[in-house]
Amino acid sequence: MLLDPNYLRDRIRTVPDWPQAGVQFRDITPLLQDPKTLRVLVEQFVFRYMDQDIDLIAGIDARGFIIGAILAHELNVGFVPIRKKGKLPYTTISEEYELEYGSATVEMHSDACKPGDRVLLIDDLIATGGTMMAGKRLLERLGAVVVEGCAIVDLPELGGSALLREGGLKLFTLVDFAGH
Amino acid sequence: MLLDPNYLRDRIRTVPDWPQAGVQFRDITPLLQDPKTLRVLVEQFVFRYMDQDIDLIAGIDARGFIIGAILAHELNVGFVPIRKKGKLPYTTISEEYELEYGSATVEMHSDACKPGDRVLLIDDLIATGGTMMAGKRLLERLGAVVVEGCAIVDLPELGGSALLREGGLKLFTLVDFAGH
Repeated sequence: MLLDPNYLRDRIRTVPDWPQAGVQFRDITPLLQDPKTLRVLVEQFVFRYMDQDIDLIAGIDARGFIIGAILAHELNVGFVPIRKKGKLPYTTISEEYELEYGSATVEMHSDACKPGDRVLLIDDLIATGGTMMAGKRLLERLGAVVVEGCAIVDLPELGGSALLREGGLKLFTLVDFAGH
Repeated sequence: MLLDPNYLRDRIRTVPDWPQAGVQFRDITPLLQDPKTLRVLVEQFVFRYMDQDIDLIAGIDARGFIIGAILAHELNVGFVPIRKKGKLPYTTISEEYELEYGSATVEMHSDACKPGDRVLLIDDLIATGGTMMAGKRLLERLGAVVVEGCAIVDLPELGGSALLREGGLKLFTLVDFAGH
């Protein structure tokens, strides 16, 4: 990365004890709200992916839509949403993943990509990695090549990024934070 | 609009009986998935807003994030999310609105905009208009000037666009469909 690694880190807001006591929530909304920071942020991803023959960006509901959509437009490729269960109107395929208590399901439209499409998977943050791994499975079931998973923030101590790499997904993230 | 009005209309998918019997759901995902259509779509909004001194785009959770974020980047302004209750980590303000049965709440961060900011409000579709009207109230409580509300699709027979205009919100939409 050409960027001073603290530039984005310093502009991410930490909200203590949200959504529950003991969690330090990393809030990316200040990055989006300032036009210069938004351009810097987008440029990190454009620079990495502009020569990787990406065909499609798959953004994860809902913060993954924000940078994912901009990146799709900048790279002149299409954008497809990976959504929580029950949000997509057309024929879908779905994948379940484990949460701390219980499970959750993500879905994609069954015509969201074609076999052989080179797809970039994007979310705002990698925590336990469950959603991104489920997204990878959805894309691969449709025959896509998942080029890489990317996010603004990684929380490596939660183990998600390690798990995703062990599962065969290359990852690219801009900032990491210790702890929860 | 310089565009043939059928260009976008023909690329919106109608899903019958979703999310319930009798509803013809207008699915915009095909517009996003094709890179040329995505550029055409974005350009309609860029062309309208590039000389309107917009300071900020407020996108409504979750499909409003997609075009809203691209437009913010194209106009070199910031992006702020208007989210369903309980999704924003920092101090929020909230507004309730009526649904067919019961009510729902949308929230914004209390520092999402400053008094006098000229804000464009964006969603994918205007149906009953409740969410967009609640978004307008949120922005105005923070002292913003809501320049206009915009969406890809209007469903005029549901009365939302008329209600919003009566409530003092200028509107810009690209395609309308009869019926539900």
